[in-house]
Parts: sequence; structure tokens; C-alpha cells
Amino acid sequence: MSTDALHLGILSAATIAHKNVRAILKTPAVEVVAVASKTPDKAETLIKDFGLEGKAKAYGSYEQLLDDPNVHAVYIPLPAGLRPEWVCKAAAKGKHVVGEKPVALSVKETDELVAACKKHGVQYMDGSMWLHNPRTAEMRKVIDSQIGTPRTVITTLSLPVEDIPGFQEASIRCHKHLDGLGALGDLGWYNVAVSLWAFNYDKPIQVQAHIGPKFCDGGTLMRCGANLLWEDGRRASLSLGYDRGLTQYAQVCGTEGVLEWNDYGIPHREDKAEYTVKNAGMFIDLYTKVGQDIETKQVNLEQPQEVHMWENFAKQVLSKMSPH
Amino acid sequence: MSTDALHLGILSAATIAHKNVRAILKTPAVEVVAVASKTPDKAETLIKDFGLEGKAKAYGSYEQLLDDPNVHAVYIPLPAGLRPEWVCKAAAKGKHVVGEKPVALSVKETDELVAACKKHGVQYMDGSMWLHNPRTAEMRKVIDSQIGTPRTVITTLSLPVEDIPGFQEASIRCHKHLDGLGALGDLGWYNVAVSLWAFNYDKPIQVQAHIGPKFCDGGTLMRCGANLLWEDGRRASLSLGYDRGLTQYAQVCGTEGVLEWNDYGIPHREDKAEYTVKNAGMFIDLYTKVGQDIETKQVNLEQPQEVHMWENFAKQVLSKMSPH
Repeated sequence: MSTDALHLGILSAATIAHKNVRAILKTPAVEVVAVASKTPDKAETLIKDFGLEGKAKAYGSYEQLLDDPNVHAVYIPLPAGLRPEWVCKAAAKGKHVVGEKPVALSVKETDELVAACKKHGVQYMDGSMWLHNPRTAEMRKVIDSQIGTPRTVITTLSLPVEDIPGFQEASIRCHKHLDGLGALGDLGWYNVAVSLWAFNYDKPIQVQAHIGPKFCDGGTLMRCGANLLWEDGRRASLSLGYDRGLTQYAQVCGTEGVLEWNDYGIPHREDKAEYTVKNAGMFIDLYTKVGQDIETKQVNLEQPQEVHMWENFAKQVLSKMSPH
Repeated sequence: MSTDALHLGILSAATIAHKNVRAILKTPAVEVVAVASKTPDKAETLIKDFGLEGKAKAYGSYEQLLDDPNVHAVYIPLPAGLRPEWVCKAAAKGKHVVGEKPVALSVKETDELVAACKKHGVQYMDGSMWLHNPRTAEMRKVIDSQIGTPRTVITTLSLPVEDIPGFQEASIRCHKHLDGLGALGDLGWYNVAVSLWAFNYDKPIQVQAHIGPKFCDGGTLMRCGANLLWEDGRRASLSLGYDRGLTQYAQVCGTEGVLEWNDYGIPHREDKAEYTVKNAGMFIDLYTKVGQDIETKQVNLEQPQEVHMWENFAKQVLSKMSPH
């Protein structure tokens, strides 16, 4: 075990934890030293599945893990309805935190969670992996230098899960007390994040819900849409739902060009990612053809985007930690 | 001059008329026999530009052209604010009509125009060329057989013309009495048409305007968006504007797949057109990758889509006309 690495504990052995453990094993700067689950078998299975026996301890309660002084930071993939409480408890124990998204189910809870992390001097990061993909940094440059003033962002995010038998019973997104924002918190988190990112995190002045949302029996959103409006007329329109085939389309359109990509949440491939840049364009030859330069660019990825996320988190936290 | 061809007169020598004369010259079933312009020079220039001297007569008034018994049908590219009156006059003279879009500026005017055409037994067709592209028929089959139940349609149509000096003064879309629906009539016509087409022309039960529209000094829309909702939760979201780079993106998303194309108004090329079909898809391998079959199909086009439009119009009309 490297003494320079960030020692990570994981609260819960949810599916998303497996994805992240896989990534962490590819991240030299982070080592999994503990896994806690209320069902101890699940913690042990996770440890065994990834060959972490003798390296990571299994705990039967989250409190026990938070009391382990060998743990520097924790990853908390608990449902959003339960997570803020544990983020605050972890912060109080001096643990840095990566939490899954959405951060919380209300602004109040989010504010409390941020305040707790500030108070105890720990780093909080949400598990939005796309932000750490090297493609995202390249596209940032495209927005800032190639497409003029960005005017609109259009995003769609959809997943064909609504009709899978048992989905409503099994999914945390269909239970108000677990992930009460449903598809909006699960999928819409990305639509909104891409829209804000494209506009450099300026705050919109108005938000409008689309007609035609659908709620499941558990009272959470299965599909919805929204428009965001900024002071200077910039707009974002987003659409998401569990009711249809997989789409992850994003279009950022500026006065002098267009940026498009088709897999903004999770890229089609781990080893390369694409995006398309178009100039302003115009219809030409008596409006019979399109005159527009269209270039699809490829970004080679040496590591999956989640590895980049964990590297960035470790860099942030290790720079804050006193030598141990 | 073929005795079997449809004899066409053109009311006004607008730019769009040039596009159509070019197409008609490639359509054996249609012959331009007359052009009328209030500025007679313009009619003569159009005739000369396309080598129609001796074949087509130049008229200095629309009435004169409508009185020409050699004219079977007329193409009316006048602005929407002036057009319905001339459609009705043409119908009264027994002329079949192709009119530009939008059909009219109100439902009332549209109803009157349709009633006039019915009364006088003449065919009316609007100049929406994409409907006649062979790609459209192929995509219809995809929607009907490959993507399950269509759930959503997303369309964007934008053109970077707002900032061109003099645009507002010169464009008929910036003057209420000429094309009073502005960008909504010019661009939105396509967004709405694609949405209705995708859903087999079922009528939506609710329409919602997006926040953030913009009007020009002349009082017409420069940009806007809308949502359409159908009884069973099908939805369309559309966005359009003169304020940004060229986009013509359409996405039809169903329970079992996705249809996408990037040039729904005017294809990138006249000799081939593309569309992409995806199956329902799912995130795979612990949500690290996309598992989705993506196939881009090419349709070879022997003729530009506007030639197909004129062929279809001629076929419709000639089948109604008594032998001459």
C-alpha cells in the first residue's frame, strides 16, 4: 500500500460502487481501504470481487468505517434521500467526500452539506464523470474560441427502462424517500449540468417546466423537460425520460458555429471520444445545398473518464492534506 | 413544348422562384410557360437567366398571367401576408397552385384558401420539399417498423442571419404585413411539420411557447421555441431562430429505437442523403460504456428533392385534368 495514496472508504456496495472500484484500481493515487454495508456480505463480496482481500476492511456499519483513522476520504453512493446525512457525518469526522448525484433533494440540504464540508475543511466532489473526460476540456476550448457567442444549448437524455418489468419496484428513483427527484435527478442532472457548463455556470433568470411530465406510482418523475433562460437571451432546452431509447445528444449553438456530441453522459467508447464542430454555415446555391464546414474530432483516451475523476479528486485532496 | 406537360405560370420572381425554375427545368412533366412580376424587368430577367425565351411569356401583372388560358397551374412564392388572396384568385380562374410556406398567417385565411381550392376543384400544395425527398419515405418506414412507439420528437432549426447588416430591412420575415410569422413561419414551419409527420399527423392537445422569444423592430419573431403534447404523452420540443449557426437537427425517439438526421430542411448534398437509426440501447459493463447499435444509412438521390416535389405535383394535377 502506497503511503502517498489517498485512502478511500466506500459507504454502501451499490452497483455504482462497483463501477468506481473498477476505476479506482486503475488510479494509482487512490486505494480502497474499507467498504461498509449494512449487509456485511455485500461489502465482503465487493472486496473479494475486486481482489482487495487483505487490503480493504469490511464494515457492517457506516459509522464504524467513518471511525477508521486509516480512511482519508469516503465515496458515498447512497440514494440522494439518505446521502446528505452521511456526507455531514463524514465531514464531521474529517473525511473528504465524493458523493453521487444529485447532490441532495433540496437546496436547503445542499447548503447544509456544503456548509458542513467547509466547516470541517474537507473537499466535496460529486460523481459527475463527464466533467473529467479530456474531451470536455477540449470542447470547452471550442466553445470559448470557435463558435462565437453561445446562444442555445439543446440536450436530450433518455433510457429505455420504464417498461422493464419490476423497474418501479427495484429502482431507487421510483421511491420518494430514496431518490425523490426520479429521472430529473438521475438523468436531468446531466442535462442541467451540460447547459450550465456550456454557459460558464452563469445563473439562469427563469426556468420553465415543459408540459407533459409523467410521475410513477411512487410519486417521482419518469420523464420531463425544461427551458432555462439567461438574462441576455441565452437559452437551454432539455428533455429527459425513462420512456424511450437511449439518447445523450447535446448541441451548443453559437453565433459563429455549432458544437455537437452524442454521448455526453457516458461516452460510446472508453478509449476515444468524439465531438463535431461546424462553422456558422448558410444555405447556398439558391438554397439548394448546405454550405457548412463539418469536422468530427476524436480525442484519444488513455483512461476511462471515471479514472480521470478519481485522479482529480486525489490531486485536490492530497494537496490539502498534511503529510501523514 | 410537350403537350403532356403541366403548363406552369409563376407569380413573382423572388429568389425562391429561381430555385424552383432550376428544379422545374429538370422535371419533364412541368414546363414554365409564363412569369409575372410587378417589375416586368424581373420577369424577363428570370426568363432569360434560364433560357426560357420563346417558351415563357413575361407578364407585368399577376391578373394577366391568371387570365392566360395556356397556364394550367401557378407557383406563388409571394410573402405569406399577400399570398392567400392570390391563391384564391388563381383558384377562381381554375389554376392549380403550389404556394410557398407558411400557407397563410392565420387559420382563418388557411381555411378560406382551402375552401376556394375545393370549390373550384383545383389542387393546392405547399412548397415543403423535404416531404418529397425519397429519404423521407425511407424514414417513414423506419418510424413505422424499427423504433417501437415514437415518444418524442426534438428539432432545432437555426440560421445565422440576424446579425447580417440590413437583414431586418430587407427580409420579408421582418415585416408584419409581409411574412408576419417571422422565423416561426419561415423556420418553425419545418420543426412543426417534422413533428406532425413523425406522429402521423395526429393533432396535439396542448401547445406551450418557450420562455425567451425575441421579436425584431418590425414586430415579427426572430427566435422562439415550443412544446407540443399529444393525448398519450407523446411530445415534441422545437427550437428555432435567426440568432445562431446553421442547425437542422431532428431526433425521433421511440420505445425501441431512435431516428436522427441532421439536415431535415435542405439536405447537405443533392445526390445523397443520410439518416441514422439506433436500437433502444442501454449502458453496459457497470455503466461504463454504451451498448447500442448505430447505423447510418445513405439514400442515393437521382434528383434534388425539389424535382421530386414538382414531379409529384404534376402527377397529382395531370391525373385530375381532362386531356387537352
